[in-house]
Amino acid sequence: MTMKVLGYAAQSAEVPLAPFEFMRREPRPDDVVIEVMYCGVCHSDLHQARNDWGFSQYPVVPGHEVVGRVASVGSNVTKFKPGDYAGIGCMVDSCRTCHPCQEGLEQYCEEGNTQTYNGVDRHDHQPTYGGYSQAIVASQDFVLKMPDGMDLKGAAPLLCAGITTWSPLRHWNVGKGSKVAVVGLGGLGHMALKLANAMGAEVTLFTRSASKEEDARRLGAHHIVLSTDEAQMASVANQFDLIIDTVPYDHDINPYMPTLTLNGTLVYVGLLGKIEPPVSTLPLILGRRSVAGSCIGGIKETQEMLDFCGEHGIVSDIEMINMPDINEAYERMLKSDVKYRFVIDMATLKA
Amino acid sequence: MTMKVLGYAAQSAEVPLAPFEFMRREPRPDDVVIEVMYCGVCHSDLHQARNDWGFSQYPVVPGHEVVGRVASVGSNVTKFKPGDYAGIGCMVDSCRTCHPCQEGLEQYCEEGNTQTYNGVDRHDHQPTYGGYSQAIVASQDFVLKMPDGMDLKGAAPLLCAGITTWSPLRHWNVGKGSKVAVVGLGGLGHMALKLANAMGAEVTLFTRSASKEEDARRLGAHHIVLSTDEAQMASVANQFDLIIDTVPYDHDINPYMPTLTLNGTLVYVGLLGKIEPPVSTLPLILGRRSVAGSCIGGIKETQEMLDFCGEHGIVSDIEMINMPDINEAYERMLKSDVKYRFVIDMATLKA
Ligand SMILES: [Zn+2]
Ligand SMILES: [Zn+2]
Ligand SMILES: [Zn+2]
Ligand SMILES: [Zn+2]
Repeated sequence: MTMKVLGYAAQSAEVPLAPFEFMRREPRPDDVVIEVMYCGVCHSDLHQARNDWGFSQYPVVPGHEVVGRVASVGSNVTKFKPGDYAGIGCMVDSCRTCHPCQEGLEQYCEEGNTQTYNGVDRHDHQPTYGGYSQAIVASQDFVLKMPDGMDLKGAAPLLCAGITTWSPLRHWNVGKGSKVAVVGLGGLGHMALKLANAMGAEVTLFTRSASKEEDARRLGAHHIVLSTDEAQMASVANQFDLIIDTVPYDHDINPYMPTLTLNGTLVYVGLLGKIEPPVSTLPLILGRRSVAGSCIGGIKETQEMLDFCGEHGIVSDIEMINMPDINEAYERMLKSDVKYRFVIDMATLKA
Repeated sequence: MTMKVLGYAAQSAEVPLAPFEFMRREPRPDDVVIEVMYCGVCHSDLHQARNDWGFSQYPVVPGHEVVGRVASVGSNVTKFKPGDYAGIGCMVDSCRTCHPCQEGLEQYCEEGNTQTYNGVDRHDHQPTYGGYSQAIVASQDFVLKMPDGMDLKGAAPLLCAGITTWSPLRHWNVGKGSKVAVVGLGGLGHMALKLANAMGAEVTLFTRSASKEEDARRLGAHHIVLSTDEAQMASVANQFDLIIDTVPYDHDINPYMPTLTLNGTLVYVGLLGKIEPPVSTLPLILGRRSVAGSCIGGIKETQEMLDFCGEHGIVSDIEMINMPDINEAYERMLKSDVKYRFVIDMATLKA
């Protein structure tokens, strides 16, 4: 049976988010119906609500850091039972047959994965609506198990900010003995510090503001380097195996490149756009360094990340908000005025 | 005893190369004295003769694709004896103690390697002069053995163009089953085709000119893709594990990026400068692709490359020139009017 749910939607790029009623599909045999408890607020939500990337299909119901309680399951579901705590991240489906999908890297599906919102369902071709809503329905293969005892509010941002930084840390083999630097201290950056530290790496934050030192150290940074200070930058030449660049707007990466070691990689996780100012090939050629990108993470590695966070007591630093405050939260996010992620208490949806 | 030798030098950025007499150092215990027979003509020679990179110290005696006969050896030399055929590439020394040096990656020496010409010797602090000369003196640790029976004229360009393309092919694990594309069909590009083919890869040349097809196939390309043809480019989406970009001037790499497979890498070997037009992070993020650089190769891998070429009968396609014709050769090189490398017959130096 289809289900009428209340959510919050942008009806166009120009208007604020407002209450919106819509139907959730009748669960298929492999579907899980989740009553949403908490939903993290990602920069992507704002960008897609406002059509900053040009492919928004309205109405847009954002939200891809979704944590809730399983309400019911389809007849073929084996992974979940009603009452379980479950999570949904940025994807709810993929082709499942291409080479990346078969490797558990559904985020790189050659046909394109199905986004949790502002996407189109592969079966009924209906728009997908995200976690700013009472309930969500998705195949068990794209639903995550929340570790026992995890703080579910702080866990919500793990499903995008957490996995987005976890995946490159794992892919580039960060562990004990690794030296990792992080550029940017927002939702992604603060997770990168926590995760890299817990993986055993020596962690440095590049920042333009010395005022971030105390917070950065609390979050896991062993060192702080002022990227505007040439002497400090020179002192870390050839140091880092991996730099996770979380900055979502244009910025010059040239000062960071010589701080990578031989074969080191700077990986973009936050910027969608052209690399401007342009990066020089010199530090690439003279140190076999790379500039790469990484996109969220596959379902299998998302579960690994959640389990790791459960073991290590890691969640996001959050500020809880009520659903009606979402538009104000977007304005604060634009000013980076959040430590470090807003999470919506979905119990406030009807208030 | 020091030795007076004749060579060809640029005395400034503005004048053509002309005969120049200078002294070679008295051989040290680990030095090999090589009578130069052939010297390849690399684009770097022209750039440094004309101070295009801004660090030329005149006089500049170019030449880092040097093949010759060992004339004498220092008291500690064990690798060579008089009469052996020997080669010298782009480096004649390095710190030998840093991490890259200890790994046999002297090209990435953290103190900077000692360039074969337009460098400064680490011991006597005298300028280094290259292979456009009667003889050259270098430590046995930076001198290569030429495989028995190899055509020494065609072998000279292996010492820069060959190793510059070999090293990234090896580093990124190209072999049977790999798909490799090459951008640019000059000295470097034609070696990339030959080497990738001999390694067992399926090889594609990206070109803007269909007229290169016949030559490209002869050199080892299995496929030719017109980079100006959008349909052809779309047909190779997600195909290549590695793209070797040999183009030495500004060019747009954005059309190539989507042709890389998941985790694929485009590696610059020819361009020293900013990546303009700027490259987008989108194909990096959406396919975990990388843009990297690679610099010549270490001494150990240069020897491996020479031995591989010896076994597989690979040398460069060359045009022999006489030493006095070097300035005309530079002009032709600027127009890419060479198939595919000029090599100077050093017997013509005195003519
Ligand atoms: Zn997100
Ligand atoms: Zn797929
Ligand atoms: Zn060269
Ligand atoms: Zn060194």
